[in-house]
Amino acid sequence: MNDQTLPRPAADQLEAALGVLRQRFGERFTTNPGVREQHGHTTTHIPNQPPDAVVFPRSTEEVAEIVRTAAQYKVPIVPFGVGTSLEGHVNAAAGGVSIDFAQMNAVKSVHPEDLDVVVEPGITRTQLNTHLRDQGLFFPIDPGADATLGGMAATRASGTNAVRYGTMKDNILALEAVMADGRIIRTGTRARKSSAGYDLTRLLVGSEGTLGVITELTLRLHGIPEAMASARCTFPTVSAACDAVIATIQFGIPVARIELLDALQVKMVNKYSGLTLPEQPLLLLEFHGSEDSVAEQAKSFGEIADDAGAQDFEWTGRAEDRTKLWQARHDTYWANMQYMPNMASLVTDVCVPISRLADAVNAAQDKARELDVLAPVIGHVGDGNFHLTILIPKGDEAAFERAKSFVGWLNEMAISMEGTCTGEHGIGQGKRKYLPQELGDAPEVMRAIKMALDPDNLLNPGKIF
Amino acid sequence: MNDQTLPRPAADQLEAALGVLRQRFGERFTTNPGVREQHGHTTTHIPNQPPDAVVFPRSTEEVAEIVRTAAQYKVPIVPFGVGTSLEGHVNAAAGGVSIDFAQMNAVKSVHPEDLDVVVEPGITRTQLNTHLRDQGLFFPIDPGADATLGGMAATRASGTNAVRYGTMKDNILALEAVMADGRIIRTGTRARKSSAGYDLTRLLVGSEGTLGVITELTLRLHGIPEAMASARCTFPTVSAACDAVIATIQFGIPVARIELLDALQVKMVNKYSGLTLPEQPLLLLEFHGSEDSVAEQAKSFGEIADDAGAQDFEWTGRAEDRTKLWQARHDTYWANMQYMPNMASLVTDVCVPISRLADAVNAAQDKARELDVLAPVIGHVGDGNFHLTILIPKGDEAAFERAKSFVGWLNEMAISMEGTCTGEHGIGQGKRKYLPQELGDAPEVMRAIKMALDPDNLLNPGKIF
Repeated sequence: MNDQTLPRPAADQLEAALGVLRQRFGERFTTNPGVREQHGHTTTHIPNQPPDAVVFPRSTEEVAEIVRTAAQYKVPIVPFGVGTSLEGHVNAAAGGVSIDFAQMNAVKSVHPEDLDVVVEPGITRTQLNTHLRDQGLFFPIDPGADATLGGMAATRASGTNAVRYGTMKDNILALEAVMADGRIIRTGTRARKSSAGYDLTRLLVGSEGTLGVITELTLRLHGIPEAMASARCTFPTVSAACDAVIATIQFGIPVARIELLDALQVKMVNKYSGLTLPEQPLLLLEFHGSEDSVAEQAKSFGEIADDAGAQDFEWTGRAEDRTKLWQARHDTYWANMQYMPNMASLVTDVCVPISRLADAVNAAQDKARELDVLAPVIGHVGDGNFHLTILIPKGDEAAFERAKSFVGWLNEMAISMEGTCTGEHGIGQGKRKYLPQELGDAPEVMRAIKMALDPDNLLNPGKIF
Repeated sequence: MNDQTLPRPAADQLEAALGVLRQRFGERFTTNPGVREQHGHTTTHIPNQPPDAVVFPRSTEEVAEIVRTAAQYKVPIVPFGVGTSLEGHVNAAAGGVSIDFAQMNAVKSVHPEDLDVVVEPGITRTQLNTHLRDQGLFFPIDPGADATLGGMAATRASGTNAVRYGTMKDNILALEAVMADGRIIRTGTRARKSSAGYDLTRLLVGSEGTLGVITELTLRLHGIPEAMASARCTFPTVSAACDAVIATIQFGIPVARIELLDALQVKMVNKYSGLTLPEQPLLLLEFHGSEDSVAEQAKSFGEIADDAGAQDFEWTGRAEDRTKLWQARHDTYWANMQYMPNMASLVTDVCVPISRLADAVNAAQDKARELDVLAPVIGHVGDGNFHLTILIPKGDEAAFERAKSFVGWLNEMAISMEGTCTGEHGIGQGKRKYLPQELGDAPEVMRAIKMALDPDNLLNPGKIF
């Protein structure tokens, strides 16, 4: 049972809206229970709230038609990518219509000279990068899951490459969106920068579908680096690893990825991926650049790691070794879930100033021991962002409550360290109560914007606020 | 006469508000005509509209008091830094009170490990960088003028370093602001990234004082690079220079600066700075990194320039040569103004996808010849952003009208090339009519936000909309 259920639309209004959409979209409209349930499903512990119907548009104009119909009958709308969000973002808290962008996944145009691409929101990041590869270009944001670009924009996603390439907010030049009244707007142009009015692009990025439905994205691209290398090294303590991270960032070494795994996380990775990494705090790195630059970065980092007490710094430019290491990193979700049989997980993320990172991770490890739960830590530590996966026996309600209190404690600690309750997962349903703790009155300003742009609260209601 | 005058507040209300502020702020409140006129003054052709009074607060709480008083009596507020904006941003189009941040220019805290700093809005970029230098840190955004950080945030400024370090939107972690009702909000934390709710930081950045009054900024810093080098080379045509720029960006050479001067601009620089640069299209570059990396960047760029037909590529790591070159670049405003006696100027900026840059610059040069005006071009071409300085005889009304029509033509051309009517100067009063041309219905969404957050239109009225 999800305790975040909101009042549903009037039954006759809902029926009328679904009737209009059924007639208009035919086989691209469904109320099939399995399909509906799948559209409330996410990689989360938050219970499912299926929409009343799912519709599969093929164009911006069709999305606008759906939104206008929903507005006419006061029926909520929930935009849906592939459902990899972690905080209940696609749950239909008030019922309504899920808009599935599976059939809007085209690359509309690539501009290699300008390093940009125009895409539909349903394309996933691996689909996009496969399309771009032949032109020597790539889109760098990698949240782990093979999410859609529309979903990544809506949640302001980031991931392992953000320390170098930034987050979704830094890699979107412009959006097209359908607003709550069905109006289609364009928030920017293909210019690399602009001072022309309010930054509606950045306002929609991270708005979790509550202000507008994204129907097209103009993205910044990057050239595939001439050379890439990866490195790993083990540290005696989390603090030593964090010292190396701080020095790396301060010296301006342009690392593309710098990931921390705590000893427990390494142990789980070893078991799942058949590796023999020392079961101590581990940093995994990736360097991008020319052959010379990559070698110089690796050498400079090696010296920093050495000063911080690293025990076994190794780096390699060999693609197969690099792939193996990063595959193991990307498989941590599965490594964690399969470490013991019959476990459920709560995954949460926080982000703190990197000077506080070691304190935060150490405190989280202590808390896990105190609460007697397994909770491996993995983090995009160049940004001070880390994830905690709390593993509990399936169906153990007492352990679930302990895990939830652990999440609350972690979020409050991050906020007390001048950090944020979410570096990249978003607020969704799961983190609503922390937002005012973090930002005081600012959420009231957000709410005023929401009410101005969506007075009937039809766009993804029950999220953020 | 400024034709953008708005209805003024009721005389009795204004008198009452000024009385309250006079009593509260004593010597830090003035209605001195000279001071008032100076607070409407900017580096612009737009006629002066002085405020009715100027007040000099010393704290956020004092700013909130001023705004609450203004709100009570329905008197407009115009935030003021040092008045270097170019589109009439600090004109008091409806009268009211200018808030001068000269006495709020403190560095509140520096966090070297986290590479961030918390400052008051009245600090200028050279004051800030002087403060940071001993710690090996710097704030990279350099719009040319020694603007305040508050003003730079409000106009989403950028400048020569943006190609590598981004614009103000990329280098602000969080803001504190006083909203129209006097409420003080904080838009973020010191975390490097966050997905916690709407991005109010980016909404306020570039809002030109129309949504809130910025009272504190948390800025990202960078380590001063170990090595810097500068380079210059001359091209036979603007197109050849732009080809070199495109290749540089595509190959991912992390240039810190890449500036284009057209032949006329070089001629003016030569005359003013006593240089003997070849009077042809010129690229000036700066490279930041380690000694090895800087040398590698210079070498790679040299090969690209050679392929594009450059005639005299030179680079140097010597600080005095670098300074001389960039000083000449920064003095272009004065070089232009003093090229001939008794000239006035209209300065405008546009930004286009870099694939269209050569077309845009060539067309602008043709247009200048057609209109028989001198109009040197200088641009932050890595971003596709360039400035046109249209020089006309002082007091020549016909030439002034021709210059204004030239600006209009240039803005419309940029928009037609999928670019923007302003890359970094902002909309202010001068570019209001181009915003709907560029973004269609999106300004209506901006207006809805403005009305929700400032229903009485008291915060810097007459700007953007």
